[in-house]
Amino acid sequence: MDMIDINFIQKIVIIGTGKLAWHLGSALKSAGFEIVQVVGRTAEKSGKLAQELGAQFVVSIDSVNLYADLYVLCVSDDIIHEVIKTMPVVNGICVHVSGSKGIDVFGEKYKNFGIFYPLQTFSEGRKLNFIDIPILIEANSEVNNKKLIMFAENVSNNVFEVNSEERIKLHLAAVFVSNFVNALLSVGNELISETNLPFRILYSLVLETVNKAFDSNPDHSQTGPALRGDHGTMDAHLQMLQNKPELAALYSLFSNYITQKFSQ
Amino acid sequence: MDMIDINFIQKIVIIGTGKLAWHLGSALKSAGFEIVQVVGRTAEKSGKLAQELGAQFVVSIDSVNLYADLYVLCVSDDIIHEVIKTMPVVNGICVHVSGSKGIDVFGEKYKNFGIFYPLQTFSEGRKLNFIDIPILIEANSEVNNKKLIMFAENVSNNVFEVNSEERIKLHLAAVFVSNFVNALLSVGNELISETNLPFRILYSLVLETVNKAFDSNPDHSQTGPALRGDHGTMDAHLQMLQNKPELAALYSLFSNYITQKFSQ
Repeated sequence: MDMIDINFIQKIVIIGTGKLAWHLGSALKSAGFEIVQVVGRTAEKSGKLAQELGAQFVVSIDSVNLYADLYVLCVSDDIIHEVIKTMPVVNGICVHVSGSKGIDVFGEKYKNFGIFYPLQTFSEGRKLNFIDIPILIEANSEVNNKKLIMFAENVSNNVFEVNSEERIKLHLAAVFVSNFVNALLSVGNELISETNLPFRILYSLVLETVNKAFDSNPDHSQTGPALRGDHGTMDAHLQMLQNKPELAALYSLFSNYITQKFSQ
Repeated sequence: MDMIDINFIQKIVIIGTGKLAWHLGSALKSAGFEIVQVVGRTAEKSGKLAQELGAQFVVSIDSVNLYADLYVLCVSDDIIHEVIKTMPVVNGICVHVSGSKGIDVFGEKYKNFGIFYPLQTFSEGRKLNFIDIPILIEANSEVNNKKLIMFAENVSNNVFEVNSEERIKLHLAAVFVSNFVNALLSVGNELISETNLPFRILYSLVLETVNKAFDSNPDHSQTGPALRGDHGTMDAHLQMLQNKPELAALYSLFSNYITQKFSQ
């Protein structure tokens, strides 16, 4: 195997100007990398991010800098394919940042390619410590794998080598534990809004629920009326939800799931 | 209105020996209260907790100390009624600790009664800082309300006066954001167990999801394929769940809920 130059990746092009482009660009800049270019759809968006990162900007993928070491496609899942198709061939490593797209989306066009997937939910204006965010790496070759892992370790303490099949399964798990958990918090917010209490009253309960599940195992920390088989409380809850059929449906499905999974 | 003696509550009887009895008993002892007695079903259980709290113990509710200032019924929801029925009449304040039982469960038997509901999930052997736990107070009179609030403020910085209707709604919200969230974490654990990755890899994502929802509003922090209307990803996810119909059902119901609530 080739010796790997740990300084291989120095010059980086960021394609996209969304939330992840901002978060990742800032983390990479802070870690000492040179963001040579930002590619965006409008001069306003790409110019703003480029200024933040001390980079140049262009608004056409045709004008992409051909001599960077790494191209990070921070674009939404549904246009990754199109960007890969229209971007000029480059020698540096092209990576996408999607949890749900496989490595096969790159086809045969590039010599060096892979995936750099940060497992986190990103929002505009919210500061995050990148060092704690797991980064999942996959590449088209052993050498590129090693290069990307060493690169990622500059911004995160949690770098994993993961193939597409596993990453896609992880992404599905993330939908359950992040998107659906947020939806449940939104249900909580809706119910609390019918009282004089603040939504914040639920915070320490939710935090302890999460910490307990991760400190031991969520299969051991299940509690509540469904686990206890407390039909009196469950019936009373469903009665309270009779004017909210969508919440009653969630309540029933979860109660059945908990009963079947844990009460045996 | 009477002047309230802030030292009114000094001597406390704890009825029950479960997780909450341990957590609350320890917090009260640390705050300087005198636990005069523990009432439990077996000498082993009540003796163990009594020793921890420097209290006496009895194994029959008939032998309850009649001269305490406060009686805390740390028993499960389904036997509260029975304990209230069989316990001798006392002059001190009797409180139950249930989120889902109303104040009417006390009937007409006692002169002084109420509810002391700590909104948290308790586990054996897990240390909790009581001071952060919201405590919801209700009592049969304005004077007892004030007494219980002043008392609760010795162990918590988050004491609320809440009537039974609001508390029962809050308890329903707690089922969604704690019991059902734990069930989703258990789904995540199940999916991750089919990879070589540790469940812990999801921790920073879940923590940020929760913190973001409470820092702003979960209605503003929803993300994911359902919100984006990304049917390609949703179909692929359902395909992956075809051998797990119970998870496919949860996935579909949540996706519809998110679509209807947030995508309008």
